[in-house]
Amino acid sequence: MSGDGVGLGLGKDLVGLEGLERKQILGILDTAEPFKEISERHIKKVPVLRGQTIVNLFFEPSTRTRISFEFAEKRLSADTVNISSTGSSVQKGETLVDTARNLEAMRINMVVVRHRSSGAARFLADRIPSNVINAGDGQHEHPTQALLDLLTIRDRFGAIEGRRVCIVGDILHSRVARSNIWGLLTCGAEVAVCGPRTLIPAGIEELGVRVIQRIDEAIEWCDVLYVLRLQLERMKGGYVASLREYNRVFGVTSERLAHAGDDLIVLHPGPMNRGVEIDSDVADGERSVILPQVTNGVAVRMAVLYLLAGGQPELAETAKGGGE
Amino acid sequence: MSGDGVGLGLGKDLVGLEGLERKQILGILDTAEPFKEISERHIKKVPVLRGQTIVNLFFEPSTRTRISFEFAEKRLSADTVNISSTGSSVQKGETLVDTARNLEAMRINMVVVRHRSSGAARFLADRIPSNVINAGDGQHEHPTQALLDLLTIRDRFGAIEGRRVCIVGDILHSRVARSNIWGLLTCGAEVAVCGPRTLIPAGIEELGVRVIQRIDEAIEWCDVLYVLRLQLERMKGGYVASLREYNRVFGVTSERLAHAGDDLIVLHPGPMNRGVEIDSDVADGERSVILPQVTNGVAVRMAVLYLLAGGQPELAETAKGGGE
Amino acid sequence: MSGDGVGLGLGKDLVGLEGLERKQILGILDTAEPFKEISERHIKKVPVLRGQTIVNLFFEPSTRTRISFEFAEKRLSADTVNISSTGSSVQKGETLVDTARNLEAMRINMVVVRHRSSGAARFLADRIPSNVINAGDGQHEHPTQALLDLLTIRDRFGAIEGRRVCIVGDILHSRVARSNIWGLLTCGAEVAVCGPRTLIPAGIEELGVRVIQRIDEAIEWCDVLYVLRLQLERMKGGYVASLREYNRVFGVTSERLAHAGDDLIVLHPGPMNRGVEIDSDVADGERSVILPQVTNGVAVRMAVLYLLAGGQPELAETAKGGGE
Repeated sequence: MSGDGVGLGLGKDLVGLEGLERKQILGILDTAEPFKEISERHIKKVPVLRGQTIVNLFFEPSTRTRISFEFAEKRLSADTVNISSTGSSVQKGETLVDTARNLEAMRINMVVVRHRSSGAARFLADRIPSNVINAGDGQHEHPTQALLDLLTIRDRFGAIEGRRVCIVGDILHSRVARSNIWGLLTCGAEVAVCGPRTLIPAGIEELGVRVIQRIDEAIEWCDVLYVLRLQLERMKGGYVASLREYNRVFGVTSERLAHAGDDLIVLHPGPMNRGVEIDSDVADGERSVILPQVTNGVAVRMAVLYLLAGGQPELAETAKGGGE
Repeated sequence: MSGDGVGLGLGKDLVGLEGLERKQILGILDTAEPFKEISERHIKKVPVLRGQTIVNLFFEPSTRTRISFEFAEKRLSADTVNISSTGSSVQKGETLVDTARNLEAMRINMVVVRHRSSGAARFLADRIPSNVINAGDGQHEHPTQALLDLLTIRDRFGAIEGRRVCIVGDILHSRVARSNIWGLLTCGAEVAVCGPRTLIPAGIEELGVRVIQRIDEAIEWCDVLYVLRLQLERMKGGYVASLREYNRVFGVTSERLAHAGDDLIVLHPGPMNRGVEIDSDVADGERSVILPQVTNGVAVRMAVLYLLAGGQPELAETAKGGGE
Repeated sequence: MSGDGVGLGLGKDLVGLEGLERKQILGILDTAEPFKEISERHIKKVPVLRGQTIVNLFFEPSTRTRISFEFAEKRLSADTVNISSTGSSVQKGETLVDTARNLEAMRINMVVVRHRSSGAARFLADRIPSNVINAGDGQHEHPTQALLDLLTIRDRFGAIEGRRVCIVGDILHSRVARSNIWGLLTCGAEVAVCGPRTLIPAGIEELGVRVIQRIDEAIEWCDVLYVLRLQLERMKGGYVASLREYNRVFGVTSERLAHAGDDLIVLHPGPMNRGVEIDSDVADGERSVILPQVTNGVAVRMAVLYLLAGGQPELAETAKGGGE
C-alpha cells in the first residue's frame, strides 16, 4: 500500500465531496461495509496501518470527530498523535503550513485536520505530500460526516438514489450541510433545505436544491429529515431571535412528526441542543438514526484511512479478515 | 471474557464500595496480587485487554488517577482514548449521557469517569451497556482509591480485619473518606475519624465510626493514620480558619508521631500540601506508605479492569503469566 | 538492556551537553545514523522499547519537541503517557519532585521533562532512579535540540570539527544557544555569537566564543548561520525596540546572504517568526536545512532513548534491523 487510493482514483487527499463522482462515493461506502464488523468484535483491531504515523491536528475543539478518527486509527493499528491548538506552537504564531511541514519532516503518513478557516484543508493538502483528510474546515466541507450520513441513509433504505432528503437549520454557515448537499446530489437523492430565510444561501436552487419554507411541509415531503445543530453563537449574530422562537418555528417535535410518512428517519450530526432544534423524544425515538450515524462514523473513517493509504476496495474484506 | 466480573459477582460496573461484600473486596485485592509483578518487569505488558477500547472521561482535572488508569490500561494492552472537559463537546453543552451514548455507539468496552457531581458514575452506568468505573464522583465515592489503600494496609499488616484506622481531615466533603469507610468497615477494621467539628458528617457514629476530637488521641489509638488532603477551597467556605491554624491543630508532624505505636503507618491519597495537613518529614519518613499506595494503585486498577472485562480471579496468575 | 547508556558512559540521564566528552557526543550522533532509516520505512516501528513506560512531562507548551519525542518513543514501541501542566496536579500545587516520585512509584522507565526553571531536569534526575531526558529547562539547556543541530551540520559537512558556526539572536536567554555552544566547542567547531549587545552574556569570550557585532560580518565569517527564534516577550522586557527594527539590524535576508560563501547553511530551531529574525525566502531557500533538522530530531531522540535504556551504540544497527 502506498498512498493515493488508487482503486477509486480518490487521489492523495479527502478534502471534500464536491467533485467526487458517484462511483467514488459509493465505493467508499462499500469499502466501509467490511470495516463495520471490526468494531463489533471482541478484539477490535486489525494490522492494516501498523507502523503508520497519523497526526490529528485539531485547531477547533471537538470530541466526537476527533475520538471517532482516533478509534478508527487505533483499530487499524496506526500510531496516532494528537495536536490541539491549546499548548501548541500555534500559540507561538506559527503558520499552518509551517506546522504541517514540520510534521512532514518527522515523516508522518497522514494528517487529519480541523480548522476554522474554509479552505485550510486544501491549502495544506497542496503543500505536503502526506495524505490529508479534512475533518471540517470553516464553513466549507466536512466530508467524512457526510459519508457517514450517506452510509446511514443507505443502510436504512438500501439506496440513496431517489430518496428525498431535507436538511433543516442554518444551511448558510454549515459545512455539514454543504458536504451533504454535494454527496446527496451526486448519489441521486432529491435534496431540499428548510430554515430561517437569512440562513439559506442565495441561489441554492441553482444547484438543484429545493427550498421549503415551513418545517411541516418539509416533513410531509421527505424520507430523511437531517436536523442541523443550531450554533448558539448565531444568536449573537442576530440570525435567530431566541431559542424558544427557533424551537417553535423549526424545532423537530414528535407532534410534527406525527404527520410524517412511516419510513421517515431523522439524522443529526451532534452534539444536539435538545429542546432547541430537536426534542428529546424525537432524538431518542424510533425514527432517530443518530446513534447509528455515530457507529457508521468509525467504519467510514477506517475506510477512508484504508483507501488513502493505498488499500484496494475489493481487498478490504481480506484486510479486515486477518485479525491481528 | 465478556463483561461482568462473573467470578466475584461484581456486576457490570464499579461505582462504589458501598454494598460490596467482604469477599468481593478481598477478591479484588487478591486479583491485584499477581498484577503487581507486571509493573516490576522489564517488559511491562500483557495482552489481556488487547483490542479493547477504554475511554478515560475526566470532567475534573487529575494527574495521579488518570495516569494510573492509563498505565493500567496500557500494561494490559488496551487501546485508550482520553477525553477531558477542556476542548470537548461538553463545552458545547452536551449532556453526560449524550457523550456516553455517543462513545457507546463507537463500540467502546469501558469508561473510566471522573465528574464533579455525586452520582454521575451511577447515572452513567445505568444508561450504557459498557463497563463503568468510577474514578471519583463529587463527594460520593472513589472506589479504586480505597481499594489501593486497603491493599496497602493489608500488605503491611497481613490483614485488614481488626486494624484500627483513623481518617484525619475534611471527612464531610471527601469521597476518599467515604469509600474508605465503606471498605474498611466491610473488611472488619475499626474506623475512626478526626477533624474540624464542622467537617465531620453528623450521625457518622451510627455507621459504627468513632469520632476522635484530638489528633494526639487519634495517633495513640490507631494503627493506620489516613491523612486527607486539605482542599484549599475549603478555606473560602469558612470551614478552616487558616492553613497555619489547621497545621497547628490537625497537622501530622513527627513530634506528634513520637507518641505513636511502633507499627503505625501513614497514608495520604495525594497530592499533598506539605506543611499543612502533613509535614515533609512524615511524608518522606519511615512510617509513610504513600509511595507504596501509588504503586498499588496501578495493580488494583489492572485487577478491576481485568475483572470487569470478565476475567476470573483464579486465572489472573495465568493471564499475567503469558508475557506478550 | 537496563538503564545507563553503558557503552558511551552517559550515565543515567541526559541533562545537558556541558560536561560531555567529544566521543560521547559523536557516539550519540553515530547511534542516530541507523535510526534515521526507520522513519523512512513503510512500517516505522521497531520493538526496541516494547513494554517500557515513558512519561512526557511538559510544564511549558511545546508542539515540536513533544511530538518529536512522542514519534521517537512510539517508533521504538514504548508506551507513552503525556502530562502537561494544564489539568494536572501541578495546578493543585504539587511540587515537581512529588509529581516525579509518584510517577516513579507507578514504575516508569523514563521521564522526558520540560520546565520553565533552569536546573529542573538536574533536580529531578538526582531524585528519581528513572532515566531523565531534559527537553528544555528554563534558560539552561536543551540538549537533544543541540544534538540534532550537530547531526545536521555533520550531515552537510562530513564533520563538525573546524566548522565556523555563528549563533544569531538572543544568546542570553537561550537554552538552545547554551547547549549548542557546549556541543560545538566540544566537537571542535569555532563558535561566534551575534545579537543585540544586551542579549549577549557578559564574558562569553572566556568560553572561547567570538562576539561579532554585525550580522553581515557574521555571514562573511561563518559556514553555519544558526538563527535563534526571537522570543516576542523580550519586547516587553525592553531588550528589543521593535520587530521591524530587529529585522532591519539582525534579520537574515537573502540580500544579506548574497555575500555568503557558497557552502553556508542556515539553521533555525523553530518555530520561526518569518519576517522577523528570518525572511521567508531564506527559510524556504537552498541554504536552509531547517526541515532536515526536524527530521534528524526524531532520529537523535530515538538514539538517546535507546542509549539511556542501556542499548549499545554498536548494536543499534541490529536493533533497528529486526522490524517488528
